[in-house]
Amino acid sequence: MSPFTGSAQPTEKWHHLRLTRDDGVATVTLARPEKLNALTFGAYADLRDLLAELSRERSVRALVLGGEGRGFCSGGDVDEIIGATLSMDTAELLDFNRMTGQVVRAIRECPFPVVAAVHGVAAGAGAVLALAADFRVADPSARFAFLFTRVGLSGGDMGAAYLLPRTVGLGHATRLLMLGEPVRAPEAERIGLVSELADEGQAPARATALARRLADGPSLALAQTKALLTAELDMPLAAAVEMDAATQALLMNGRDYAEFHAAFAEKRPPRWEGR
Amino acid sequence: MSPFTGSAQPTEKWHHLRLTRDDGVATVTLARPEKLNALTFGAYADLRDLLAELSRERSVRALVLGGEGRGFCSGGDVDEIIGATLSMDTAELLDFNRMTGQVVRAIRECPFPVVAAVHGVAAGAGAVLALAADFRVADPSARFAFLFTRVGLSGGDMGAAYLLPRTVGLGHATRLLMLGEPVRAPEAERIGLVSELADEGQAPARATALARRLADGPSLALAQTKALLTAELDMPLAAAVEMDAATQALLMNGRDYAEFHAAFAEKRPPRWEGR
Amino acid sequence: MSPFTGSAQPTEKWHHLRLTRDDGVATVTLARPEKLNALTFGAYADLRDLLAELSRERSVRALVLGGEGRGFCSGGDVDEIIGATLSMDTAELLDFNRMTGQVVRAIRECPFPVVAAVHGVAAGAGAVLALAADFRVADPSARFAFLFTRVGLSGGDMGAAYLLPRTVGLGHATRLLMLGEPVRAPEAERIGLVSELADEGQAPARATALARRLADGPSLALAQTKALLTAELDMPLAAAVEMDAATQALLMNGRDYAEFHAAFAEKRPPRWEGR
Repeated sequence: MSPFTGSAQPTEKWHHLRLTRDDGVATVTLARPEKLNALTFGAYADLRDLLAELSRERSVRALVLGGEGRGFCSGGDVDEIIGATLSMDTAELLDFNRMTGQVVRAIRECPFPVVAAVHGVAAGAGAVLALAADFRVADPSARFAFLFTRVGLSGGDMGAAYLLPRTVGLGHATRLLMLGEPVRAPEAERIGLVSELADEGQAPARATALARRLADGPSLALAQTKALLTAELDMPLAAAVEMDAATQALLMNGRDYAEFHAAFAEKRPPRWEGR
Repeated sequence: MSPFTGSAQPTEKWHHLRLTRDDGVATVTLARPEKLNALTFGAYADLRDLLAELSRERSVRALVLGGEGRGFCSGGDVDEIIGATLSMDTAELLDFNRMTGQVVRAIRECPFPVVAAVHGVAAGAGAVLALAADFRVADPSARFAFLFTRVGLSGGDMGAAYLLPRTVGLGHATRLLMLGEPVRAPEAERIGLVSELADEGQAPARATALARRLADGPSLALAQTKALLTAELDMPLAAAVEMDAATQALLMNGRDYAEFHAAFAEKRPPRWEGR
Repeated sequence: MSPFTGSAQPTEKWHHLRLTRDDGVATVTLARPEKLNALTFGAYADLRDLLAELSRERSVRALVLGGEGRGFCSGGDVDEIIGATLSMDTAELLDFNRMTGQVVRAIRECPFPVVAAVHGVAAGAGAVLALAADFRVADPSARFAFLFTRVGLSGGDMGAAYLLPRTVGLGHATRLLMLGEPVRAPEAERIGLVSELADEGQAPARATALARRLADGPSLALAQTKALLTAELDMPLAAAVEMDAATQALLMNGRDYAEFHAAFAEKRPPRWEGR
């Protein structure tokens, strides 16, 4: 646990998702399979708060985000979200949309890699959650659909118009966000949206294996790699080079770097501490 | 028509290109086929002014940009532009080059999607016009050539050194802009420069079909998607997420979003109004 | 030679690399083949200083960066760099890491294209040197490995977390920098990391041929193309379009542009002067 915790107590009771922990790997499962894990207000709020809590727990070193049942996540629930927002006023609508964006920022800014395990459909907000992750491990039958324009909204939702061009290029991103058509895993892999194509049905297992490998690695170095990837998208070259230099100087003072050298000299694998 | 028009009357007489309208789809055709639609000073000025006018017409909801004859556009005319600029002074040269850049900005900033229908050659400024479009529908025999360095100029022309790396990545963009070699449609598709590969000879028809589909969609949501894609290339993640939130709150107050929900409940297709 | 040289004399004696010149093409060879061209403090410093010197020599119009022996470059030497940095204090570590970043900035900012000839392994700092080049010509058996996390450091080293997402997209970049796995040339080409795939054993010859072609081209126009590609990654669209306009106005006043027009009229190849 970080020494810098405030007065509020963390909770272990999450009503809108399932959380398990296994030696540094947290697994968050969207668990509303009868609705294809459609997101509710409560689910967004829980994702936001859970990521904030886990970011203060030193014990979490990688996170798997998956969905129970037939698919990853079908996006915002048509009744509970679309229906409900129709009677909200402007301030409430802004509050809601800021909350969904905070979830994406939390995924990008948390100090551990996030691996999305995508099977079946990842649609709407579900597609953006997967996009915000550091890795997307997908079944060959998985499909991504940024279908916001299909409901009369902007394809730029929760940062998608920022993240998608930087992941697949402006041309593909325009097509995907404007048309809202499903992109199947083979095409998603071809354009750079999928990190690893699993055998059918193996996305959760492969995602967990990847998270395990990351959690067993030099986790502070991995956290800094993620932080630099996120920050340097918004930085000129000169600043990025300076930020890299300061970060490496920091890590060269750390234990894992010395451990690598010792292990190399002794011809054994390093024992990473994440410090 | 926008309520915010000034004193000057719009024109329907465009001397340097052809404009047709069909229920929300404007088609702009470069119509100088005997010169492979080489651009003249007048053609650039007309593209700039036409896009400004169409941007104020609420009735235009998608635009197709194509070329008559054997190809899309061979770029700036060797005699009428290259020859003429040789006797210009510095201020005139800057004026000319600013005008060409304004055409690209107008394509990126107009409130409707632009679909380039590319057959045959798209060279020099013609390649950049296609690059600035939201979609590039291409015949398999189409080819793109950013051949500015072949005439002794910079490959960064009209924003190409900004747009191309964001579309195909820095490595491919460097190769294309430095060497000025033609890129045929299959490679262009592979690297993300082509949005849709048509059957041979079908690029104009497929581009028009795509524009029709866009014009019949939720056009305000599509316009905002385009605006966000354009703006968020130049924005950090936190600002992009905030801009998405404000845009969605705006559109959730709009008619098309309510119409989607009503149509969904009534199990019928939505009737989009673009409002 | 630039007229703007200072008091210090340039050197022709480089102890840590080999430099040859051939009519506008400089070839820099990492020449420590018994150590797979592992970089030492001296090699980094020489690369930094050599690029600064060559940037002031008008005679260099293209540069090939290659490695002698079995591979391109295995990165920072385990003993001479990793071992040595373990006993450095914070200020020394920052100095070292700033120097390596300066090499990358020098490659991106020098006024001539840099062609990396990659055979065998390009690992760690070697992979970043190749990434910073304008072109990567690779043997099919070449492999790139951004293996910084394998030694307990950040994958963002020398600007890699800035350059790699802009070259291959954020998804691939995250995977490569986090996991540090080798990427073989065919995959590297598929994701946009390789500019030209050579026949086996031909990377140095093909890289030299490309550099020759660039050096024989309109070198001022090529230098400006490179400068714009580098600068416009860090610039909004409106500024990029303005920078392109000013650059083209400048080059339209130059000799090579007039020479193109004269050669075109006389149906002969242009004789580029680079002015």
